[in-house]
Formats: sequence, structure tokens, C-alpha cells
Amino acid sequence: MKKYVYAFGGGTADGDGSMKDILGGKGAGLAEMCRAGVPCPPGFTIATDVCNIFFKNNRRVPHEINEQMWTALEKLEALMGQKLGAGDNPLLLSVRSGAKFSMPGMMNTILNLGMNDQSVEALSKKSGNPRFAYDCYRRFIQMYGEVALNIEMEKFDHIFDARKAKVKAKLDTDLNAADLHAIIKDYKALVKKETKKEFPQDPCDQLVGSRDAVFNSWWNPKANYYRKMEKIPDSIGTAANIQAMVFGNMGQNSGTGVGFTRDPGSGEKAFYGEYLIDAQGEDVVAGIRTPEPISQLGDAMPAAYKQLVEITSSLEKHYKDMQDFEFTIQEGKLYMLQTRNGKRTGPAAVRLAVEMCEERLIDKKTAVMRVAPSQLDQLLHPVFDGASLKTATKLTKGIAASPGAAVGRVAFSAEDAVEASKKSPVILVRRETTPDDIHGMDVAKGILTAIGGKSSHAAVVARGMGRPCIVGASTVVINEKTKTATVESGGKKIVVKEGDWISMDGTTGDVYLGQAKTKEADVKSGHLAKFMAWADEFRGKFGVRANADIPRDAQVARQFGAEGIGLCRTEHMFFAEDRLPFVQQMILAKTEKDRKKALGKLLPMQRKDFAGLFTAMNGFPVVIRTLDPPLHEFLPKRENLMVDLAVLPHADAKTKKEMASRYSMSVGDLKKGLPALLERVEELHEFNPMLGHRGCRLGITYPEITAMQAQAIFEAVVQVHKKGVKVIPEVMIPLIGSVQEFAHQKEIVVKIAEDVLGKAGIKNQVHYMVGTMIEVPRAALTADKVAEQAEFFSFGTNDLTQTTMGLSRDDYTKFSAHYEDLKIFTADPFGVLDQEGVGKLVKIAVDGGRSARKDLEVGICGEHGGEPSSVEFCFRVGMDYVSCSPYRVPIARLAAAQAAIADKSEAGRTS
Amino acid sequence: MKKYVYAFGGGTADGDGSMKDILGGKGAGLAEMCRAGVPCPPGFTIATDVCNIFFKNNRRVPHEINEQMWTALEKLEALMGQKLGAGDNPLLLSVRSGAKFSMPGMMNTILNLGMNDQSVEALSKKSGNPRFAYDCYRRFIQMYGEVALNIEMEKFDHIFDARKAKVKAKLDTDLNAADLHAIIKDYKALVKKETKKEFPQDPCDQLVGSRDAVFNSWWNPKANYYRKMEKIPDSIGTAANIQAMVFGNMGQNSGTGVGFTRDPGSGEKAFYGEYLIDAQGEDVVAGIRTPEPISQLGDAMPAAYKQLVEITSSLEKHYKDMQDFEFTIQEGKLYMLQTRNGKRTGPAAVRLAVEMCEERLIDKKTAVMRVAPSQLDQLLHPVFDGASLKTATKLTKGIAASPGAAVGRVAFSAEDAVEASKKSPVILVRRETTPDDIHGMDVAKGILTAIGGKSSHAAVVARGMGRPCIVGASTVVINEKTKTATVESGGKKIVVKEGDWISMDGTTGDVYLGQAKTKEADVKSGHLAKFMAWADEFRGKFGVRANADIPRDAQVARQFGAEGIGLCRTEHMFFAEDRLPFVQQMILAKTEKDRKKALGKLLPMQRKDFAGLFTAMNGFPVVIRTLDPPLHEFLPKRENLMVDLAVLPHADAKTKKEMASRYSMSVGDLKKGLPALLERVEELHEFNPMLGHRGCRLGITYPEITAMQAQAIFEAVVQVHKKGVKVIPEVMIPLIGSVQEFAHQKEIVVKIAEDVLGKAGIKNQVHYMVGTMIEVPRAALTADKVAEQAEFFSFGTNDLTQTTMGLSRDDYTKFSAHYEDLKIFTADPFGVLDQEGVGKLVKIAVDGGRSARKDLEVGICGEHGGEPSSVEFCFRVGMDYVSCSPYRVPIARLAAAQAAIADKSEAGRTS
Repeated sequence: MKKYVYAFGGGTADGDGSMKDILGGKGAGLAEMCRAGVPCPPGFTIATDVCNIFFKNNRRVPHEINEQMWTALEKLEALMGQKLGAGDNPLLLSVRSGAKFSMPGMMNTILNLGMNDQSVEALSKKSGNPRFAYDCYRRFIQMYGEVALNIEMEKFDHIFDARKAKVKAKLDTDLNAADLHAIIKDYKALVKKETKKEFPQDPCDQLVGSRDAVFNSWWNPKANYYRKMEKIPDSIGTAANIQAMVFGNMGQNSGTGVGFTRDPGSGEKAFYGEYLIDAQGEDVVAGIRTPEPISQLGDAMPAAYKQLVEITSSLEKHYKDMQDFEFTIQEGKLYMLQTRNGKRTGPAAVRLAVEMCEERLIDKKTAVMRVAPSQLDQLLHPVFDGASLKTATKLTKGIAASPGAAVGRVAFSAEDAVEASKKSPVILVRRETTPDDIHGMDVAKGILTAIGGKSSHAAVVARGMGRPCIVGASTVVINEKTKTATVESGGKKIVVKEGDWISMDGTTGDVYLGQAKTKEADVKSGHLAKFMAWADEFRGKFGVRANADIPRDAQVARQFGAEGIGLCRTEHMFFAEDRLPFVQQMILAKTEKDRKKALGKLLPMQRKDFAGLFTAMNGFPVVIRTLDPPLHEFLPKRENLMVDLAVLPHADAKTKKEMASRYSMSVGDLKKGLPALLERVEELHEFNPMLGHRGCRLGITYPEITAMQAQAIFEAVVQVHKKGVKVIPEVMIPLIGSVQEFAHQKEIVVKIAEDVLGKAGIKNQVHYMVGTMIEVPRAALTADKVAEQAEFFSFGTNDLTQTTMGLSRDDYTKFSAHYEDLKIFTADPFGVLDQEGVGKLVKIAVDGGRSARKDLEVGICGEHGGEPSSVEFCFRVGMDYVSCSPYRVPIARLAAAQAAIADKSEAGRTS
Repeated sequence: MKKYVYAFGGGTADGDGSMKDILGGKGAGLAEMCRAGVPCPPGFTIATDVCNIFFKNNRRVPHEINEQMWTALEKLEALMGQKLGAGDNPLLLSVRSGAKFSMPGMMNTILNLGMNDQSVEALSKKSGNPRFAYDCYRRFIQMYGEVALNIEMEKFDHIFDARKAKVKAKLDTDLNAADLHAIIKDYKALVKKETKKEFPQDPCDQLVGSRDAVFNSWWNPKANYYRKMEKIPDSIGTAANIQAMVFGNMGQNSGTGVGFTRDPGSGEKAFYGEYLIDAQGEDVVAGIRTPEPISQLGDAMPAAYKQLVEITSSLEKHYKDMQDFEFTIQEGKLYMLQTRNGKRTGPAAVRLAVEMCEERLIDKKTAVMRVAPSQLDQLLHPVFDGASLKTATKLTKGIAASPGAAVGRVAFSAEDAVEASKKSPVILVRRETTPDDIHGMDVAKGILTAIGGKSSHAAVVARGMGRPCIVGASTVVINEKTKTATVESGGKKIVVKEGDWISMDGTTGDVYLGQAKTKEADVKSGHLAKFMAWADEFRGKFGVRANADIPRDAQVARQFGAEGIGLCRTEHMFFAEDRLPFVQQMILAKTEKDRKKALGKLLPMQRKDFAGLFTAMNGFPVVIRTLDPPLHEFLPKRENLMVDLAVLPHADAKTKKEMASRYSMSVGDLKKGLPALLERVEELHEFNPMLGHRGCRLGITYPEITAMQAQAIFEAVVQVHKKGVKVIPEVMIPLIGSVQEFAHQKEIVVKIAEDVLGKAGIKNQVHYMVGTMIEVPRAALTADKVAEQAEFFSFGTNDLTQTTMGLSRDDYTKFSAHYEDLKIFTADPFGVLDQEGVGKLVKIAVDGGRSARKDLEVGICGEHGGEPSSVEFCFRVGMDYVSCSPYRVPIARLAAAQAAIADKSEAGRTS
């Protein structure tokens, strides 16, 4: 029969540290410690498989597996020279959960198992401490009652508190043995009343009940939620660790504590932790007594402390990683209860990796693999000073959309934000944002919206700007007229007025009233700089570029290590306040001639932008995308126009004036102007703008727009080339669905490029390419044909995800929570590339494209370009680079390095 | 060297009838006729290749090819015993275009080539008819001047008319030889003035110039347009046919004519055509003189007539098809100038195929292949009586969206249409239609919209209903308030008022004022019935189902031969007037309980619908799709609500009353009710409804909707099963993107099915399936996974085209014309399946699905299911059936039969 129960203790173990799948993290750690001669209480681990069998078998463990458990128990009793809950020297046990991945505090634990009416007396006699014995018993009844018998905790607390009140005890420790004895009597009566049975006296029944309670806790709501959050599969199950009890609560020469071999917050090499004298494990975390810093243990119990430092230090060396440990000292003797690789913040992760490598504990490759790319995020944005938040009033919690801390005064419109930003920092608070709000977002320190998800306009733009952003803060109800927001918080309504200070943490989604303190991030020096340099060594020639639309963003991107621009969205330049009027003129033009006139005004502005980008990216490629969004995005909203037009006949002078200013018309012009404007807006109105007249479709119907943009690009090339800048322009045509579309646009671009470069006499000195975005499934499916014409591909995975899944990123938040609950989405498909579906198309396109053009340059410029698992995918399918928002460049660099390392070791394994 | 010039004449020919690729249709026909001993003027054909070479070679024919031409000319001169344009008996030539596919009248022709100052005198002497000779010469100068020298026709006309005026001639024939001589002089002067050169006297120059003019006409705008319309590739080029002239204008024993061996309109076996005595070919079509019916030729020239009947009849037997021929009689001698398979109407095609098969001229297989499936369309809808249209006032022309003739009184809203339809037939005229208009469309005889394309809501629904429909009639400006439409027609404005009669032809797109006469189509008898029975023999087990939502449509579908329902859109039942209030109640419900209550009211209605469908389809499968459209489609439009809400404070009593009725509220409720309604509408508002909260996403967030529909379906199954109906229900889940979504919905359906059928005790007597629509690329890409759960696939190619191409069918008409001009779209992708892109996904899905489930039933229910080339594709990728609107079922049956025949001969060829 298969082995399900693994013993450990007495300097040996059935399992070892590599068996986390079977033994869980805790079980594997205990086995490994025992093998290494570390003093641990002996015991045995029931494998994670049994948890799954338990649930498949109507929540019962099959007889054969129970037999293995009883055999292990007999061996344990022999090793300890004790009998479970019997005799003069009864064996007591703890039962603890332990899945492959740490789920701290999410599942059940039972201590002091084996206590009953007989063993409590034996323990009392043996320890000479009746209070201790009764305390153990009452703790056990309470724990077992709660987790195995499902009796509400409050009912036990009620008995306990009643007794304390009766004897006027302030602290738990004020209760004496007699008091505890009385409590035990009441506890047992409670159990009888609630379960219609006596409290189980048979220690074997207790063991089965406790183990099953641990298994049952795998599906409790806390654990479910945690698994969902941490993306831990439901299928792995938890092990149950049954271990001989040691007691930290046997007087002043006993104690218990937890610690880390290095500081998990900063990564500093400092022994770190806390402990309590005369206490059991739960007391340390329960917060009833304040634990002492671990350094003081050296004074209190020097021998035990010295041994603890030695053991944990050797454990760190053994595991080659910072250890998170638990220990108990029973009457001066140290027992290690657990050790595991400790969780750490981003800054700590980087520092640990760098220092351990410098200490030669790990090699460079291991150091680079040691930091999760997403952990870097915390190092790249300003952060709140934790202490200052403790006293702040929490206002709400939304979806953390773009990390970093921001503090500012509330503004409810883009215009107000621009105005207010001249005087003080501003947080822009909107129901949702639209491209019209760009200038407001640009001046704001942070953006907060009431609706929308991680891929809403606000979120995407904010991330691109590196601006902290919280979206979908659904308790915030905004009244734009009164310029207030009402927030329901803990049952009461808080009204936030324009100009009020708020603080928001885009990393957590938390919003606070008032001004919290922040700290700036440092990326160009210290551990991070060293770490990133190592990562780049492994990354090799796989590139990381940034999505940047304006020269300032390009400079930031360079600082973060971007090797070029993977996406410049020219339309973002169109939304700027000084340009929008010309853009609108162009759209409202009735003839090609008028349209060209308006375009002529935009030309020098675009040229200037491009020159700035090229200069910032001297020596690196710059991918410029021609105009993409539907033209109606540049005009007032149809429904607002309809309302204003309907209201106009009834409007008073003030309203008319407001309208006039809104549409940049005189009051007198409104009567004729509004219907005319509405007519054009109606003409441009679309039912599904995402699938409408945009991308290359604009450039094909209005070739003069593409021509103007090409003109601006290549005139800028000539301009900066003269100044000695090395320019590598790549013109990208968006929303291509067929090679015919691409060829049409390419012809325009090439003709102008040849003309402009030719006239300047630098045709042979500038190498440019014309390529396409792959963002429509049809382009991916016909990639072989497209690549006959296109010189590079860049995957626009935002739109490709929308079209492949038939999912609007502006709308899917209406049901995405539901989808995540039902595990239809295992992750937000706009955050993490859907490799199974969208990824399949990407693969088809890369293979198709390269079949037609061997040296086809292939990259990604969708949001996924900065998401680690997606970067790894891009590396794997053979792309040349990823491009992401400037603030995610280091994350992408690290993810790419890790992908390269994994790829090599994979190759090593298969060859 | 390769052969480029092919001689014919003298009872033999270099080429033959099979060489259309090389010789073009006309050249191949001439070669074949010569070989068959038919009297034709001899000549030679310059191959189609030369046309392409000509354009690649800067519009010059290379020397080597010219050499071949001169050799052929020498042989022709020898055969004729004449010299080109020289001597006493000069040879004159015609030069005619002739591509592989007939392009009647689209390219240039030159007659009388060889005329010059010498030959005109020789001809005059030889014919004894100076007027004839001068007429030939002036015609040649005019034709050559126009097509080879690019002189405007008007300039020649001006000279000609001036001369007529001067001599007071009424008819051209009133001009005598001297007049014509004078005209020739003026013509030559004109040529000199325009080209700075004398009119070419060298017949060889004339030949080169004429031939090149024919090639050049390949790219003239008319020809371009025609190729686009008929989907003739640009790359095939035209041949040039150089042939000895024969003259129908040599007096009363000469003549010329055209004809058909059978009636191309009706297919009746009757010699059919017209002729003119003493005329050249162009006079027959020019309309200056009215031609005589060909039967009269029998009286005028009995011998020639007899010979003509014999020759054409043997040509028909030779080609085994109805012939369209041209002939000339020169001084009593008959010459055949051309023969080809004649174009024919749909009814004629069917009758010809059936009768020729019965005459044993062709076999059954050939008969079935002989009719283009699209030609059947004309047989399936009522049609206008052509004569009655001649006198009608044409109002406008839109896009022909759903065929058939309709006559009715104009209504401008669905409500008005319902009301008016009680008294007389109605044509619904709207700017566009929405699902709200369904009841109006349902009662209308025809639908006319000002905007939208062939796949707009109006078009799709109308085709589904078999209702004639014209969309995108852009000259129609509708004023809903005044209930009038203003139509600009030929410079003047016509105002159409509510209640005015109009007639519309959904087959052509034409709209007329007044009541035109119509004729009913007959499908159950006669030639069509016989023809379809033959088609079905070849179609075999490949099925054709119909898309039908209500029992009446299902009955129509059965009459048209549908073998089941491939798509029942349950939401169409939701839009019915008596149900919409409950649907709205369901949507506005705040709790699941209220929602279930509203659903409870819909249950019996849906059950009744399903029972009706099952009964109509006794013994055939019925695919029922669960609710698909986003819920906001059932509520008032957001922008209208916004306007009404803004206007409400200013509204007078009448306006308020109208509003109240619009929203089914009391006037008093408006103030609270409108904002509440708007709030819910805002909640449901989507930026891209196509990619939003619809399809299975509704059923997943509101499982009670799916449950209600499953309940209704299986209760209906039980009901009709008891009455002896054989029910084969197939429940279809829409918009699946992943197997997880499908599994969620399947579980609900199966649970209810088992429950309902189990209670009725008929679990083993009813076989049902649960399957999915494949309409999102992700479903196609993961089809292997989806098919693990889904028991059938049905391709929703409308949506699959939208998502694969990133193209909204409601919006793409804004640029589709542009795309067709630029040949980016070779066909409307919503009409003709894009096999290169969308088809690739379909293939991936079929293969993926069958890899997981061998016996997976696969069909198509998108609009493409009734389009012949798409049906052929579906057959080829291995689908089990297609489903289309009832009125297209015979078309699909024929297309499938033809695909099966093609497939077998393909298999025969490769095996």
C-alpha cells in the first residue's frame, strides 16, 4: 500500500525537505530539520493526498490510512516513552495544517491533544503545577470544541469571562487552578448541551477529530479567499502534522517565540523576532501580552538563546535563504517547531538576494531567481510611511490599479484639477475617466475612480504615466454639481468636499482622509542597481522597451533601463489642450482641402514631439504608431450634446453661457452650432467603437492623416540626425486585419520617407522600418501574408485579448468578479496574458510571420508586456522584446532574465 | 517562342473552345465554331497574356509578338485573297475585346479597320455603293479617333450633327455620299487638330493602334466597375480578336442581329432575338432604329433564317447549353460572329436545366451544376411585374438587403405600422431599425431604412423574416415628428407622407412611388420542385436547417425543405409586445426573488413557443439558443432617457403625457421614475455591447434565466411528446469563450432536463443534447477543451466575423465602400464568409472539436449559412449541416448539392 504517513524525530525522518508536494511546507521542514539533527519534538505527517481523499470519501479517512496513522502513533509513543493521554507521564500532541504553500493562520491548529479527566491529573502531578495542567485542559476543550465540534467561540469566551468577573480577575493569569477547574466543568457542560454528547475522553477519538478538523479547514472561507488571492490551486490539499507537545508555559524557564534570520521588511542582516516567557504559541500572536524583542532572550536564557542563534543560522545556510522559524523552550530546553523560507517585502527581497550572493551563500543566478518580478513594484514608486497610516481615517478601499502613494487635495473634474494643481498637489476623483480627462490626470498626483477595473481607461493611462491609481472604489458616490463625494464607511457617511486632503495607496487600494507621509523610491543606486545589472547579464539580447508618448516619459523610461520605445501612441499628443482644437477642425472639415489645412497645423507640433522622443532615445529604436482611436473620441459626447440641445430652448442666460463655453461657441451661435455639431457627432457615432472606424481604417479612409504623421516623423528624423542623434524609427500601422490594409498604408509611409530622407541626402544613413500591430485575430491568422509586407510585428495584446475573448475591457468588470468567484477566470485576462487562448493566436502569428520573413522583429506592446508570467511567455514564443509602461521596465527586465535562466535550465534538462 | 497569336477560319482553327483562359470567351468560341464548320469570317486572336505583357511593358506589345501578328495577317490575306486596306478588293477588319468572362459592352470595339483614302474608293467601286463606302470610312475615323486617339466623341458628333443640320437631314440615312465625304474631310481635320498628326493612312498602324486601344480599355472605369461587381479578377486580361469584316449594311439583302436559342427570361424553348436589315452591329444596340423580332427574318430571308436556326441549334447541342449569338448577313450570305452560353434569369436557369436534362442534352449532375444557387433567390420571393414598373416614378435606390417585391403605405414608426397594418399593407420606413421595432417589422410588407448595410439590424431581421428590405437609402431624410420623408430625386425634392403608397424591390434596391403590381413565387411545383429534388439526391446526408424563432417561421422553413431548426433565438420571443413588460420587470428586479417572479411569468409563454416549434419540426432537430443580447436592449435607450429627464422640468402637460406613455408610467411618477429607470439603464450601459455582458455571461451571472429557459424547453418537450410528436431538442449556449463557462451552463440545463424528463418518465424516449455556439475566437482556439463538454458546435459566423476581424457589423458600413473600392474587401465579409481569416479559425475549431469528440455534430447558423460559397466551405471543412433563414433554404440545399458534386469529382481526380 502507498505510504501516507511519514514519521520524523530522533535524529531521522521518513521524508525530507524536497517533499513539499507530499508533506506540505511545514512537514517537509520538520523532516529536514530532524535529519539535520536540529532538536524538534518528534511526530508524523499525514500526506496532502489524504486531504483530497478525505473530501472525495465523504469527509472520512479510509481505514487503511488510519491504520498507518495508528502505527506511526505507536512508534512515536515508543520514542517518547509515553502513552497518548494516559499513564503518569501522558503524551500530548499538537495537530497543525501545512500545505505546500504557506497560508499563515488560514487553517486550524489544535494543541494539547490527549488531555482528559485522567491525564490532566497526571500532568498536574508530573509538572507539580496544577494550574498549568488545568490551563492546558481548558485550552484544549476550547480549541477542540470550536474547530472540531463547531461550537461558537463566543460561548466559551462567555464562560471564561463570567468566571473572571466572578473572581474579579483582570488577566487570564489571575485565575487560579480552582477557577480553571470550574471553567473546565462549565466547558464540558457546554459541549454536552451543544453536541448532545460528552466531551470525548478517548485520546484516539480526539486525534481523529482534530485531524479531520484540520482537513475541513482547507475549505473554510478564509482559506478559500487566501488561495484565490495568492493563486494557490484548490487541488493541492493540506497535510496534517501531528507532533509531540512541548510546553512554553511551564514557568519562568519556559517560553515560546517566532523569528527571522534577517529583517523581512528591509532585508538587513539582523536576527529578528519576538518571544514570551511562560506562554504557549498562540499567546505570542493573540496580542493579550506584548512579546519581548528576541535580543532580550540572550539575557533571560543565554544558553537557549545561543543555541537558537546557532541553529537558525545553520538552517539559513542549509536552506540558503532567510528563515522564518518558531521555537519553544520547555524548562530551559530549546525545541524548534518550524522553519521555512521567510516571506519578505520587495526591498528586503532585493537586499537579501544581493547580500547572500555577496556572502557566497548563493550564486548570481539564484540571486536573480530569488526576487519575484512583481516584488520590484514596491521599490519603484513612492510609498507611504507605514507608521503615519496607523492613525489615519480610512475612507474606502478600491481596486489597486497603479502602485505608489499619493497625497493631494480632491478635484472632481480635469479642469478643476488643472486649476488647483497650480497651488497644491491634487488627487483627481472621477466616476470614471475618459480621454477628455488626460490633462487632469497629467497634473494629478493620483487618480481615484468609483467605477472601472484594472484595465479601465483610468488604470491604463495612470500606469502609463506611472501615476498611482485606484479604480472601482464603489462606495464613493460623486456629485459633480455640488463638487462633493459621499463615502459610506463603517455605517456612517463621510462627505469629502473639493479641496479636502486625501491620501491614496495605489499598491493596496486604500484611501485615507488627510495627509499621510510618503517616502521616495531610489532606483539608481544600492542593492537594486546591482541586482538589476545582474539580471541584465542573464537577460542577454532579449530587449525591454517602454511605452511612452512624450519626451518626458521617454526620459523616465531610459532611467528605468528601457532600450527603446515599443509604443508611442500619437493620439495622446492629439488630446493636448493646444492641439485638440486643430484635431477637431480636422474632423469637422467637410473637404479634403480643409482637412489638410488643419493637419498642416498639427504637423509642426507632432514633428517636435517626435524629435524629442528620438533625442531621448538616442541610439535606440522608437516605434511610432499612426493614429488609432475613432475620431468621435476627440469630439464632445453625443448624449451630452443631445441633452444640451433639448434643454437649449428652456435655458437661462447662465446655462447658455456655460454651454457656449463647453462647446467653444458664442451664445448666439448655439442655436445653429449645436445641431450642426450633433449632426457630425451622429455621423461618427458608433455602436461598438472598439470594432469600428479606427486604427488603419482611419488612415485608409483619410490617407492625408497618415501622410501628415509620416511627414512629421521623417522631418523629425532629419532634424535630430543633423544634431548627431542616432535615430532608429519604426513606423507602426495599427489594427491591421489583412496584408492589403497594411500595403496601402506602407506605400504612403515609404513614399514620404524616401522623399524626405532623399531630399536631406541621408537615405543611406537612417534605417527605418514599417511594421504592424497584431491586435485583431485575423492579422494573427494571416500573419504569413502580412509579414510579406510588414518588417516588424508588435502584439497589441490589450485589443487582441478583447477581440479573441469577445470581451470589452471597458465593460467586463460588470461580471468579472462573478467570473473570478466561479474560477472561469483564473486571473484578470487584461492583467495576465491568457496563454491558452490569446497566447495560441500569438504563437500562430509569430510562427506564421517568421515563416514568411525569417528576421521579422517581433515584440509586444500591450499591458501584458510588463507582467512577469506574460513576459516569460513572450520570451518562450521567441519574441525579440517586450514593451511596457516606464515604471514596469525593471519588472520586465527581471522577468525576462528569469525566463532566460529557466529556458536554459529547461534546455539543459531536455538535451 | 511561345505562341501568342491563334488563327481561325477556313474550316479550321489553331485554338478550340476549351482555351478560354488563353483566347478569351469570344476567341475560344470563334475557334470552336470554325472547327465545327460554322460559317464565320476568318481572323486571328491575340492571347490574353499579351494584354498583361502590354501593361507590364509600358503599354507596348513586344516586337516578337508583333511579328506573330503580321504573320497571321499575311495568312488571313492569303485566305481571303485580299490585302488589308489595299488594292481593288481591300480587306477590312474588326478588332474586338474578349476576356475569359463576358463583360458585355465594357471594352472597346473597332470596325472597318483598313479604311483609308485609297481603300474607300476601291470599296466604293467594288460595292457599287459610294454611300456605303464613305459611311464605313467615317464610322472608322470616328471609332478610331475616339478609342485609339482619345478624341471626345462629342466633337465628332458635333461635326456630324452640323452637317445634318446644314443639309436639313432628319435621319443619318438621309445623308448622301457627298455629305459623308464632307464629314470625312471635317473628321480628318479634327484628328489633325487634336493629335497634331494626320489621320493614319497605313492600315498596319491602324491595326496596332486599334489593338492597343482594346487592351487599354481593360482598365477603363466601366470595365473596372464591372469586374468588381462580377468579381472578375483584374489579372486575367482580355484577348483581342481581329477578324475580317462582313457587312450587314450592304443593302436590303444584308442585315445583322443577335439572338438566343431559348428565352433567357423564362427559359422557354423558343428561338429568341432581333435583327435589322441593312445595318452594322452597333445599330442594333444603339437604339436609333427599332430592331425586328427574329421570327420575321424567316419571311425576309428564308434561306438565311433556316441556316441560322440550324446552325444555332447545332451550336446549342455542341455546347450543351443555351446560346447567345451574333450574326451578320452580307448580301444573303450568313456569317456567325459570336456564340456563347447565354446569361439567364433565375427562373430561366432552372427551367433550362430541367428541360435540357429531360431532352437528354445534359445529365442530372450537369443540370444541378447549371444553376447558380444565388439565382434561386429570384424564384423564392414575390416579384414585380416588370411592365408596371416602366411607368412608375422612381423614388430612390438603396442597398438590396432582402429580396422580393413589396407594396404598402408608408409608416414611420413601429407603432404606426402596427396600427396601419390593420387596415392596409404597410412599408416601414426608418432611419435604422432596432430590436424595439420588431413588432413593426413583423407586420410590415417591406422595410426601408436610410442608413445601414447588408448586415444591419434591419437587413438581418428582414432576411430572417423573409421580408423584402432595402437599407442604406441615403437620399431619404426622415422627419419622425412631421411623419414625412424628403427624397432628393433627379434634382427635385419629393416629400413622402405617412400613408402614401410606395413599392420597393428588395432584389434590386429600387423604390417607386405608388402601387406597382406583383406576382407570387411558386416553389412547390413545376420545374423548381423537380430541380430541387434532383439537387437533394446529390446533397446526400449533409443537412440544411433553418433559423426560425417562432412556429410560423418554422412552418415556412419546412415548406422550403428545412430539415430542422439550426437556430431559435429565444430573445426574439422576449421582444413580443405581451412579454416585454415582464422582461423589463425581470431586468429591473432588485433581488433574485423578484427576478424569479418575473421569469415565472415568462415561463409559460416560452413553453408555448417551444411546443409550437417542436410540433412544426416533428422528427427533426430543433436548436434552441439561450438568451443572448445584453439586457439593456430590452430597456429604453439611455440617451433618450437623458434627454427626457433634462426636458422634464420644462415640459408641458402634453409632452409629459407622451413621456408617461413612452415609459409606461403615470405622469405623477415621472419625476421619481425617470431617474430610477435611468440609473438602472446607466448601470447596464456598455461602451461595446457586442463585447459586453451578453450570451452565456448573462446565464452565468443570472443562472435563474438559463434555468427558466431550460424548464420551458423540457416542459414543452414533455407536452408535445405526449401528443406523439418526435422531439429532438438541442440546447445551445451562446458566446462561450472557455469550457468552464460552458460547463457552468450545461450543469444547469442537464439538471433541469433530467428532472423534468425524469418526472414525466420519458428519460429514455427523448434524446437531447447540450452544445455551444462558436462565435468568439477563443472558443475556436480551445475547441478541443470545449468539445470535452459540448455535444455539438454551431458556428455563429456573424459574431465570429466581427471578433476575428475586429469589425462591428453595425459600424463597418462607414468605411466598407472605401474598402471595396481599394479591393481590401473582395466581398462583404458579413455576406460571404472570409475563408482566409475566419475560415481558418472555423477549421481549427472543427478539427479541435472532433479531436476530442469524434461524433461531434457541427453546423453553422450565421448569415453565411445561406450563402453559396460559404456553404461550399462548410461542406469542405466537414460540417454536418448549415442553417439559414427559411427563404434561403433552397439556395443552401443547391449550394450543398453542388459542393458534394465538386467534392466527388475532386476526389475522383486525386484518387
